[in-house]
Amino acid sequence: MVGEPSGFIRDLERIEPLSTEAQDRAKRHLDSLTKPVGSLGRLEDAAVKLAGIQGNAKPSVDRKAVYVFAADHGITAEGVSAYPSDVTQQMVLNFLNGGAAINVLARHVGAKVHVVDVGVNGDLNHPLLVSRKVRRGSRNFLREAAMTQEELQSAWEVGADQAESAYRDGIQIVAPGEMGIGNTCAASAITSALTGQPAEAVTGPGTGVGGEALRHKQDIVQRSVAMHFPEHAAGTLPDALEVLRCLGGLEIAAMAGFIHRAAYRKLTIVIDGFISTAAAAVACSIAPPVWAYLFAGHRSEEPGHRALLTLLRLHPLLELGMRLGEGTGAVLAFSLLEAAVRIYREMATFDSAGVSGAISQ
Amino acid sequence: MVGEPSGFIRDLERIEPLSTEAQDRAKRHLDSLTKPVGSLGRLEDAAVKLAGIQGNAKPSVDRKAVYVFAADHGITAEGVSAYPSDVTQQMVLNFLNGGAAINVLARHVGAKVHVVDVGVNGDLNHPLLVSRKVRRGSRNFLREAAMTQEELQSAWEVGADQAESAYRDGIQIVAPGEMGIGNTCAASAITSALTGQPAEAVTGPGTGVGGEALRHKQDIVQRSVAMHFPEHAAGTLPDALEVLRCLGGLEIAAMAGFIHRAAYRKLTIVIDGFISTAAAAVACSIAPPVWAYLFAGHRSEEPGHRALLTLLRLHPLLELGMRLGEGTGAVLAFSLLEAAVRIYREMATFDSAGVSGAISQ
Repeated sequence: MVGEPSGFIRDLERIEPLSTEAQDRAKRHLDSLTKPVGSLGRLEDAAVKLAGIQGNAKPSVDRKAVYVFAADHGITAEGVSAYPSDVTQQMVLNFLNGGAAINVLARHVGAKVHVVDVGVNGDLNHPLLVSRKVRRGSRNFLREAAMTQEELQSAWEVGADQAESAYRDGIQIVAPGEMGIGNTCAASAITSALTGQPAEAVTGPGTGVGGEALRHKQDIVQRSVAMHFPEHAAGTLPDALEVLRCLGGLEIAAMAGFIHRAAYRKLTIVIDGFISTAAAAVACSIAPPVWAYLFAGHRSEEPGHRALLTLLRLHPLLELGMRLGEGTGAVLAFSLLEAAVRIYREMATFDSAGVSGAISQ
Repeated sequence: MVGEPSGFIRDLERIEPLSTEAQDRAKRHLDSLTKPVGSLGRLEDAAVKLAGIQGNAKPSVDRKAVYVFAADHGITAEGVSAYPSDVTQQMVLNFLNGGAAINVLARHVGAKVHVVDVGVNGDLNHPLLVSRKVRRGSRNFLREAAMTQEELQSAWEVGADQAESAYRDGIQIVAPGEMGIGNTCAASAITSALTGQPAEAVTGPGTGVGGEALRHKQDIVQRSVAMHFPEHAAGTLPDALEVLRCLGGLEIAAMAGFIHRAAYRKLTIVIDGFISTAAAAVACSIAPPVWAYLFAGHRSEEPGHRALLTLLRLHPLLELGMRLGEGTGAVLAFSLLEAAVRIYREMATFDSAGVSGAISQ
């Protein structure tokens, strides 16, 4: 999880640590509010972290957005998904028309949805679509690296550009979301490579494969990791950026670039499920200071997600048995973080409300 | 947990089971939406349950309210709380002035706050206060029963009346909240009596007692349960209504009446932390069909809360380490239930969005 930034990331800007001064002031303010000290639990922890991220003892998350990165996956040729690849582009249109789960939940929490084509295998035209296609789907990583170095860099930059755009728009809290039939297979391969865990332990049903189909998916993951990283079986963990290039998807690379740049811009980043957490794990491996800017929105049902959250030492805010992706779990958690901020900003203090404090014991 | 309704409850109206027809239709609708079947996990379960409660395949939770019942506790004479009793009335004024955590979180989720004096030890005057004081605090249950039969019935009816008022106002989802210095001691005694667990296992810090003070509180709970229910030590569980009368508080009795009547009126009930769950456990023991109308909003840090949720077989929606009460965890969960309803009502179907379904396997 540590080490020098590698490859084209090396030249990227330094990510600053959180403001301890803002966190200390936030903690003192929380302790002055009309409630027993610490009694709002993780809402209080969240308010302190938000203050540290924003370098401001009075944090705000009024401006929220989710960026849904979409791409297809060559690995689907191996029959690893319960859905045909066409569903990627069909769902992109569904996002653009406002009918998908992410649209509904983003409306519920007051977040804007941006949809980015970073590698869909089809021609998409829609006035709301951000068209930044790098390639019509990643390569089949059972046969060759999923991306060339140039493709990886291009996809990463698509994500970084979206984080810049969020920053310019004054967005304070972002979630990376995704759509890509086959991408739980890619995330499983990345997770196995980064954590050293065997394919069976971190490869789950995704959108719904089970039984023999699941065993086939696990076999594909195991063989792919072994082919690209023969040292893996001996317990040597490969370079995270090379893992992303060989086993990733274009949308996963874009999310990693998005997360990295969002941390540089001091945005609060709420990661979603298995796929976006795989991207976050890569970003943190390349640049450990990214970690401080992350909240884990939820824990999905995918077994690999638990392994990644453990690797990242992140405790998810929600655990609702969701396994949809798109950014859905992350935007639901936006609402909890907004609650934390409102507690911080709107509650009366013991002094202002004339409420007695605790009896000293 | 079963048995005939006892005492004055015997004459109350029958609580109907949920509509299985509405639940079946809701389940079919959810499976037609553009997401893998079941991939929104507990949000989908919640939407189905809400449909069953409302007897309507298109549930709604637009109209939300929390009812905060406040009362003082004679048991505070034994030194069981970290805060002086005066804080009960000071906090009631804070609720009425909009400065407490429950006010902030209720605003965040769009819920109305009602504040009900069912037994505060002081004279309170405020145009927004519902003044229904039964007695200036419950009796010290280490010495005598906390309430007479008449006081219990009066407090129960205060709660039932508020549920009727919610029903008349067209409220669809309610939470019982509370304020009462000393009430975690009462809830611990109720929990020990209802579950058969020893006082040490179900008596925690409340607003913040620890060390010797916590051992003292546990001792008070143990002795109180043993005095009122000598059969308890031999493993015989006492009648729930008698437990409420001897060990409860006026606000706990009001919440039990509120929950019971809200279920009769087919309102969705989100219970909060340790105190409101103790009230729910009493209501369910007296009238088991109440159970179907309950959601557990969150799991608090109090050890007794876990025991009660296990007794009630309820899986909380949130687990954020909160231990404040007031209804705070319940109203936060309102937002998740509203998300479930919006998913149900606003998502596109596979047909309407032109998205392919799963490949049959």
